[in-house]
Formats: sequence, structure tokens, C-alpha cells
Amino acid sequence: MELELPRDFLWAGVTCGIKESGKSDLALFVSRSHCAAAGVFTQNQVVGAPVNVTRGRVPSGAVRGVVINSGNSNACTGERGVTDARHMTALLAERLGCAEESVLVCSTGVIGRFLPLDKIETGIQDAVQRLGETPDHLTAAARAILTTDTVHKTSSQSFSVQGHTVRVLGVCKGAAMIAPNMATMLAVVMTDARLTPEAARDSIAAAADHSFNNISVDGHTSTSDTVLLLANGAAGAECVSGEGREKFRAALKEVCRDLAQQIIRDAEGASHFVTVKVQGLQQEADARKIARAVCDSPLVKTAVTGNDPNWGRIISAAGYAGVPFHEGELSLVLNGVVIYESGRPAPFDAAALSASMKQGEVTIDLRFRLGMAEVTYWTSDLTAEYVHLNADYTT
Amino acid sequence: MELELPRDFLWAGVTCGIKESGKSDLALFVSRSHCAAAGVFTQNQVVGAPVNVTRGRVPSGAVRGVVINSGNSNACTGERGVTDARHMTALLAERLGCAEESVLVCSTGVIGRFLPLDKIETGIQDAVQRLGETPDHLTAAARAILTTDTVHKTSSQSFSVQGHTVRVLGVCKGAAMIAPNMATMLAVVMTDARLTPEAARDSIAAAADHSFNNISVDGHTSTSDTVLLLANGAAGAECVSGEGREKFRAALKEVCRDLAQQIIRDAEGASHFVTVKVQGLQQEADARKIARAVCDSPLVKTAVTGNDPNWGRIISAAGYAGVPFHEGELSLVLNGVVIYESGRPAPFDAAALSASMKQGEVTIDLRFRLGMAEVTYWTSDLTAEYVHLNADYTT
Repeated sequence: MELELPRDFLWAGVTCGIKESGKSDLALFVSRSHCAAAGVFTQNQVVGAPVNVTRGRVPSGAVRGVVINSGNSNACTGERGVTDARHMTALLAERLGCAEESVLVCSTGVIGRFLPLDKIETGIQDAVQRLGETPDHLTAAARAILTTDTVHKTSSQSFSVQGHTVRVLGVCKGAAMIAPNMATMLAVVMTDARLTPEAARDSIAAAADHSFNNISVDGHTSTSDTVLLLANGAAGAECVSGEGREKFRAALKEVCRDLAQQIIRDAEGASHFVTVKVQGLQQEADARKIARAVCDSPLVKTAVTGNDPNWGRIISAAGYAGVPFHEGELSLVLNGVVIYESGRPAPFDAAALSASMKQGEVTIDLRFRLGMAEVTYWTSDLTAEYVHLNADYTT
Repeated sequence: MELELPRDFLWAGVTCGIKESGKSDLALFVSRSHCAAAGVFTQNQVVGAPVNVTRGRVPSGAVRGVVINSGNSNACTGERGVTDARHMTALLAERLGCAEESVLVCSTGVIGRFLPLDKIETGIQDAVQRLGETPDHLTAAARAILTTDTVHKTSSQSFSVQGHTVRVLGVCKGAAMIAPNMATMLAVVMTDARLTPEAARDSIAAAADHSFNNISVDGHTSTSDTVLLLANGAAGAECVSGEGREKFRAALKEVCRDLAQQIIRDAEGASHFVTVKVQGLQQEADARKIARAVCDSPLVKTAVTGNDPNWGRIISAAGYAGVPFHEGELSLVLNGVVIYESGRPAPFDAAALSASMKQGEVTIDLRFRLGMAEVTYWTSDLTAEYVHLNADYTT
């Protein structure tokens, strides 16, 4: 599907030598004019230096772009890390002719090593010269932010309002260290809608709560990850209220949900895409606790890996999520088949259900009778390949 | 080391045919006289029928024994499950000539299947005839409660008080679905100390908080698991107050800690035994949250599997545990080597540290400067073998 590219954004991705593999590792996302911006950041107590720098600059309403490196997260690097992150933004700001505070920065990769600043300096100079607005430029940037991802990830939507076409384009990376409460990953969403910083903040927070905050690969909330929204207004359409607001929020939510699902489909070692629906709770927070417990249970994940309709593992994971309920108030539907009904096992054809799981898509549908709140989460399974990938990543 | 066997306890373990493997699957733990008893039970909202039956009978002060089957947990089996569990206790009570309420019951194994009662009836009759008080009888019982464990697990202590020798003997099983908040596993601790039900309850709760509640294989709190303490008083020594109480509690704690560590050493697919110490928090609850997050992080576990001193994963797991702190208040010592000090990376010899991890024992020591509270947890690593074992366990 062809991407809808918002006006007046430029992209570049280059190799500057941070990664030993020689893969590209430095990306620029730049707007020709100042943007209203917003971000959602990791809830980890330990945050990378770039998060500290970027978080403070987002609300200014005058953001020109983002510089992102992969291969080194610049996290757990103390004061020097903060100085290095600021230095990256100063380098790009100088080339763009804007204030240092108008440039944001993200880093992803190994924790606890200082950035190779000489390589990054050369990389930023190189990347600025390559900035362009074609799909190829976008792809180069989308590739340069990856770590162990196997494919780059982009998504877009467009809509018409006030006689103008507005585009929303997102780029992201993910793979492991993926868990809700943001810092689930790194994403930049760009739009030519006209927004205020407040409208940007409210809309990205709402979209994240139905996308990036609803995925978990391994329950490990990272120190660095960030979702950014940049809105440069180049489409000429106001999307702060009325029809513009509604259409923009719907498009943004769709882009974020698509990106979040792409992360799960590309999760490290994953062999199944798992949708976990939790319905009928009193509070959304309760539904989230249960969805999260099911997504993060290694026993549920490995049952999915083995195409095993082992519903006892799912029910017992729901049972330790910390939400009070009685067995009789719970039913479980797996890939459309009722296998546990109001607290009792329901007869089902295990061989047929296992065969449907083998297709690679599994839907776990937990139905309570306690209220109207519901959530949908997405997760991956746990394979021997995940273990191999993560037992040998550093050192 | 030779086991210390408490007086007037009898054991038996037999094969009744619940397990397709033909391994033994029914065990009896019987006292010649009535016992003061206490239990610690799963915190899961969904509990097996035997937990519901046993929990109500423990406080009576008149317990004669426990019947345990493995291979089928009798969980998620509704009213019929409760009837079946009671029937098991009635069968044993009839043979022992005591009230049905004096017999406890535990079941472990697959969730959601009805018990094969005919096999269990025959098994209980057979086991009663084989009851005996030798180490061989104990070993047979200890083996018959296992599921995917590779070795049976026993531990004992003795002490002298009031001119009498008192013995404390524990038996347990574990393997997967191991996580704190009890129902981490199944254990029966027997002693010839004389206790009241209240003293039994307080002492087993305290011991569990430094043993069974401090281990996690996969963070999955089971529906069935139970720790029971039976005290028949046959040693003639009162252990409710004074010196007897102190010595008894110390011996009980030691037995429980040893059993808990044996569970971790035999965890499914484990290649490393990991000790997680968390020191210097304001509250013990905070230290527990952090220890648990580190123990349950698949990224920490796989780093250990790969003998990789990847401290970023440990620090970031501590950071998402939900306990507020600043990086500068945290240091990390791995196998005795300081690798992160007051928020900054410390230089260390990665090859030498990796070599020490290869020995199979890893100590993760997180030192905060926020208070005096501390805990020690034990966990295993996450291997491809764990995935293989759990992707193919049922169906």
C-alpha cells in the first residue's frame, strides 16, 4: 500500500559506524517549518539521557526535527550522557539554522556505553546533505532506527477536512524490551495537520492508550523508548476542534495501532501473533491488569508456541493479576471456540483448535460478567529462538 | 546427609495410574496421633478444589494426615471437583478411623480435568497398606508428588529443648508455575514438636516469607499449590514459647529455605541458580517488588543464560518495578564485582565476569541508599529447554 507522505517533512538515514554490523544507524526526521509536538515517554525510573533532554523540549510548540541513533541507547551514562545528547541536537540545529531547543533526540541500543561522538558528528553532517522528501528517503530513515527488528515499520492515513487533505505518517522500531507504559518502543508520527501543543499532547496520549501501551513482548519496560508527534500545519487544516479533531484523532489512532501491531508481528523469535481481549470488567484498569498478566505469562506464551489450547494456563494467569473475581463469572473463548464457560470446562475438539492455532494467529477472549470495561492487547509467543537471540545479544 | 525423621509419622507413595508415564502419583503423609496444623495457600483468584477443602480444615487442631495426587490438579472443575476432593479424604479417613475433616488433600498437575476417582480409590487402599516410617517410605511419598521435577526434594533439621530432641522434616515439589505469594508449589512439613494451631500458623507464615514466597521460576502463581505444617507433639517438647519457639522457628525456616532453593535448582530447563539481593530500601515491600521484577524479566534471565554481564537489563528491570528512586541512589554488584556505581557504569573485566557466571551460580546484588529494608530472592534462568518443555506439556 502506498504511503501518504505529509507535506514539508524531510528524511535521511545513514551509516555512521555505531553498529559493528555496518547497518545504518543514524536517522533525521525534519520539518521545513516549526511544529507543535508532543511525546509519550517511558515510565521506567531509569531513563536514557535523550529522554531527559527531549521531554523538556517537546512542549515548546517550535520543534524542527528529531535526530535518532540506533546501536547505543545513551542510557545509564550519567551527566556525560546528557551533554552528549545535547551536543547531537546542537549539531543538527546548527545545520538547520534553528535553536538547539528546537531539535529532539532519541537513542536506542545497548545500555551503559558512551556514544561515539566523532562518528555521530560525521553522520549528522552526512545525513543533513542527504535529506529529501521521497519514499526512499523515508525508508532510509525508518531503517536507520532499527535494532534487532527484521523489517522497517511505517504506516499512514489521510483524510479531508475544510477542503484540505491531511496526512498522518508514523515510523517506529521495536523488537524486545517491549511492554506497556510507554517506552515500549521508539516512534515518530508526523502530520501536516495544524495542532496546538496541547492538542498534540492529548491526541498522542489517547492514541498510545489504544496502541503502544497495549502491547507486550516480554514485559520489560525499556529506559529509552519514546513516541513523538510532530505537526507542522503545512496542509492548511486546523485539527484542534470539531470535525478536524475527530478525523485527526481517528487517523492517528489507526496509524499507532498499525505500528504497534507491526512491532508484535516482528517481535524477537515470534511464531504467533496473539490478540488478548478482556471484556466485562468494572474498570478499564482491571481489564488492563488481566490482559497484561496473560500477555506476560511464559506458560501462556509457550502454550501458544506449541499450538496447545492449554486453557488452564490462561485462566490461572487471569487469576493472579490482582483483580478479584469468582470463577463462575469468567468464560474463555479461544480462536472463536468456547472452552471454559462460567467457571466450568466446556467440551471442545482439541485437535481442531490446535490446528487453527497453527495458522499463526491466536485470539484469547476472556469474558467476565462484572461490568462494561474492556481492552484489547497484542503480544507474541515465547520461542527457543527468542532465548537464543537474547542470550547472545551483547558482551 | 541423613534425614532427621520426626516420630510417629508414616508415609507411602504408589502408582495408581493417573500419569500416563506410569510414574508414581499418589502419596500419603500420616501421623499416628492428631496434629496441630497450618497452611499457606495460593493467592490466585482461581483455586483448585483441594485448596478450598483443605483451607477450611487446617485450623481444627485435629489433623491426621494428607493425601496428595500428582498428574491432575483437580482445578477449574467446579462443584464436582469439590465433591471428588472430599471423597478422597473420606476414603483415607475411613482407613485411618478418623473423621473426614481430619484429612487434608492436595492435587497437582494438569488443570481442568476431572479426577479418575476409581484409580484413586484403589491407590489410596494400596497406599494405606504400604504405610511405614522408614526413609524408603518417605522417599516413595516424596517421589509420588512430583510432576516435571527431575529429583525428589526433602530437607530436615533437629534441635534439643527441654531434654527432648525435636525434628522438622519437609517434602516438596516444584518445577514451573513457580512465583511468590504462595501456591508457588506443594510442600508438607512434619514435626514432632508440640504446637498450637495458632503457633503453627504464625511459624509457617513467617518461614514462607523467607523461602517459598521468595522464589520465582516464571512469575506464574499456580491455582493449587500449598504449604502445610503438621505438628504431632510426639517429641514431648513444647515449642510455643521461649527457647522451644525460637529453636523451632529457626529450624522450620532453614528447612523451608532449603526446600525453596531445591525447587529453583530443579526449575524446568534451568542452567543457572540466581540469587537476587535487594538492599537499602525504605520498605520491605519495595525491595520485594524490585526483586520480583528482576527475577521475572525474560531479558535478565536470558542474559544469565548467555553468561552475559548485561547490567543494563538488570538496572532497567529494577526501574520498572514501580518503586521510585533516582539512578544515583543505586549500585549493582554482580558475582562480587561492582559494575554500576551510584548511577554510573563502573569499569570491569567483562570476560572474567562472564567466566564466573559460567560456573552456574549468579548473585545479583542491587544496593540502594534509601533505607534499611532488604530481601533475598532466588530464581532460575530462561533457556530454550524451558520453552521446549512448556510448548509441549499437554494436549
